[in-house]
Amino acid sequence: MSYERGPSFEGGVALPWGFLAGAVRAGIRPDVDKLDVGILYSEVQCTAAAVYTSNRVKAAPLVVCQEHLADGRAQAIIANSGCANAATGEQGLADARAMAERTAAKLGIRPRDVLVASTGVIGTFLPMERVRDAVSRIELSPAGGPDFARAIMTTDTRPKCNSGRCGQQGEEYALWAVAKGAGMIHPNMATMLCFIATDAPLAQPYLAACLREAVDVSFNMIDVDGDTSTNDTVIVLANGLAGGEPIDERHPAADAFRSALTDCCVRLAKAIVADAEGATRVIECTVEGAASPEDARRAAREVVRSLAVKTAVYGCDPNWGRILAAVGNSGAEMIEEKAALLLSAPENSAVYLYRHGAPVAFDEAQVRACLAGREVCIRVELGLGEGAATAWGSDITEEYVRLNSAYTT
Amino acid sequence: MSYERGPSFEGGVALPWGFLAGAVRAGIRPDVDKLDVGILYSEVQCTAAAVYTSNRVKAAPLVVCQEHLADGRAQAIIANSGCANAATGEQGLADARAMAERTAAKLGIRPRDVLVASTGVIGTFLPMERVRDAVSRIELSPAGGPDFARAIMTTDTRPKCNSGRCGQQGEEYALWAVAKGAGMIHPNMATMLCFIATDAPLAQPYLAACLREAVDVSFNMIDVDGDTSTNDTVIVLANGLAGGEPIDERHPAADAFRSALTDCCVRLAKAIVADAEGATRVIECTVEGAASPEDARRAAREVVRSLAVKTAVYGCDPNWGRILAAVGNSGAEMIEEKAALLLSAPENSAVYLYRHGAPVAFDEAQVRACLAGREVCIRVELGLGEGAATAWGSDITEEYVRLNSAYTT
Repeated sequence: MSYERGPSFEGGVALPWGFLAGAVRAGIRPDVDKLDVGILYSEVQCTAAAVYTSNRVKAAPLVVCQEHLADGRAQAIIANSGCANAATGEQGLADARAMAERTAAKLGIRPRDVLVASTGVIGTFLPMERVRDAVSRIELSPAGGPDFARAIMTTDTRPKCNSGRCGQQGEEYALWAVAKGAGMIHPNMATMLCFIATDAPLAQPYLAACLREAVDVSFNMIDVDGDTSTNDTVIVLANGLAGGEPIDERHPAADAFRSALTDCCVRLAKAIVADAEGATRVIECTVEGAASPEDARRAAREVVRSLAVKTAVYGCDPNWGRILAAVGNSGAEMIEEKAALLLSAPENSAVYLYRHGAPVAFDEAQVRACLAGREVCIRVELGLGEGAATAWGSDITEEYVRLNSAYTT
Repeated sequence: MSYERGPSFEGGVALPWGFLAGAVRAGIRPDVDKLDVGILYSEVQCTAAAVYTSNRVKAAPLVVCQEHLADGRAQAIIANSGCANAATGEQGLADARAMAERTAAKLGIRPRDVLVASTGVIGTFLPMERVRDAVSRIELSPAGGPDFARAIMTTDTRPKCNSGRCGQQGEEYALWAVAKGAGMIHPNMATMLCFIATDAPLAQPYLAACLREAVDVSFNMIDVDGDTSTNDTVIVLANGLAGGEPIDERHPAADAFRSALTDCCVRLAKAIVADAEGATRVIECTVEGAASPEDARRAAREVVRSLAVKTAVYGCDPNWGRILAAVGNSGAEMIEEKAALLLSAPENSAVYLYRHGAPVAFDEAQVRACLAGREVCIRVELGLGEGAATAWGSDITEEYVRLNSAYTT
């Protein structure tokens, strides 16, 4: 009944039944030679849901998405990289609408069934002539997923995709998902886009609830640099071509679909962190025994956000006091004497660093081994209640600074 | 009536009347060759006030300060660098008390009139034998201020001091202040210590109120790396040797003293940012027209905290969308069409980058000139109300990452 990860994306996973995709290079940034406009399309109208950035500055495409998704239906997504179309006023809004209209005309569907997403530099206008031309040149095919994934990349070094199946024999559904991340990543979403396609039949309210829940434990629990972008969008399209009754909370496959969607989002969230700008390591922080679930989320997020923690992990430095300081700084309830800190790497046993309000003598070599791998696991035990949460962050390196000090130039 | 900055500290400013200071090298970190334990002492008991970190993990010396300051009186401060004595449990608390006791015995005063401050690595114990020996070796003198300033430095590259006089003829008071900063600096104080000495006579409640107000617009408005430390402490000692009636809110010199204290703290706060780990520039962000003063503070602080902004400023990159995104991310009320962004350098006229909800075409050379100096001034106009605030942050460089990835090692 659980979500099984399919073969790796790079191996060429097909889109779920009825979905087509494609991408071309429009040259939105003339200096960057990559695919930059892509379309994801379903041959039939889909039940759809989305989650957007919490930033008060919302990019024009998000405004269009919200309007077009008012009925919970959609059939296509047009996405571009290189320009965020954010902070662009009336002109930006007109451009986002024009993207939807041009795409609808090409596909022979209603503009309001087209969703729009943009990522890239804030405060510049889209070169609409090039975008329109690109839309007309895009060729859609069931094998177009990889190109679409590349078209939404900015400073990502690799496409991030995921696919799998859930449900049981006779009632099995395919999920396919793509994301981009790299920078401006902070709990409450970030310069990240994620598009999920499934052939499962879904009741819209249940789909929206499942997506909200999945985002809360995945994309809202990752941090690259503490900045929340203006363009964050997660969209799921469910075309129902696998057949059967629409899945709602009483459907036999309800739990399987919900956990598959969550699993899929968690994998992509971790993939975003692993490919963060300049990052060398993934920091996983699990907080247990918090006074409330919200306290656990807060503490876990603050640990993976802390620059002091990120730089210490980068340097393989067992400077655990910075972790404790981050927890103390999170606003979560905490009593020093009840708190404990442990460090481990996947497959390794955990080492106590701090317990009963005082440092624990530890084997430095063992701790350094925990810090040396690609994934560093921090466990915080607060000893106050039942609240638990996990967050993921990247380390911060000189390369992050280099990349970000010369982004538009 | 206003606070006049005295000759620069390096030029050898004497302490206010009745204050003595001194420092030695205890070797708290055997690998670091610098002064690391210092005492600031007043020949008579002082009216005193303090403000501490908001981190829930409070270092042992803070606990001792809180106990000893319960009566609003103090006569000496003992401070060390190299070890924060934080997250050290009962042992740490005993060590902090022992520091106060040893200092009191040396000076012939009560232990409860001694305040304690520590800064450095979290989670290690003080080498108490070396600390005790250091205390006995310290020689106090009116010229000992510079040594004391050096003794509290960690990754600071230079001592940060300030002195001046306020009041009018016949009723003039001296202020002298020292601070250390460098890393883990975020609104709500940080790994920063600040000690202020004055010969003004003060009523304790008024002194405490003035300090709270001064800290709110100075040390609570600066950001190096978004991390709030476990040891932040600001202490003011007023020995009253200038004579006259204790200053309270009805005293003729009340306003002069209050604004002198604030000015003194703002100068030191900016000095901390200017000497932040690896920093090349000070970012000053002023927010005007916010719906409330709290909104203005929030927005200004988020702009100077944002890694995306910090790295763009470091790269002299006019990527103003990141500033707007930071404001949108701060939680402050904001309507894009009413907001405007300006950039300037001190002495330069401001350039609009964004206005009426859309980008403004600007002269790129002029904007780059604003970004090229040691100080970059960002103005955000929200157009919603009367709330205004200013915050200061450092940029983030590869050097910050290098310093912080190898701090304990």
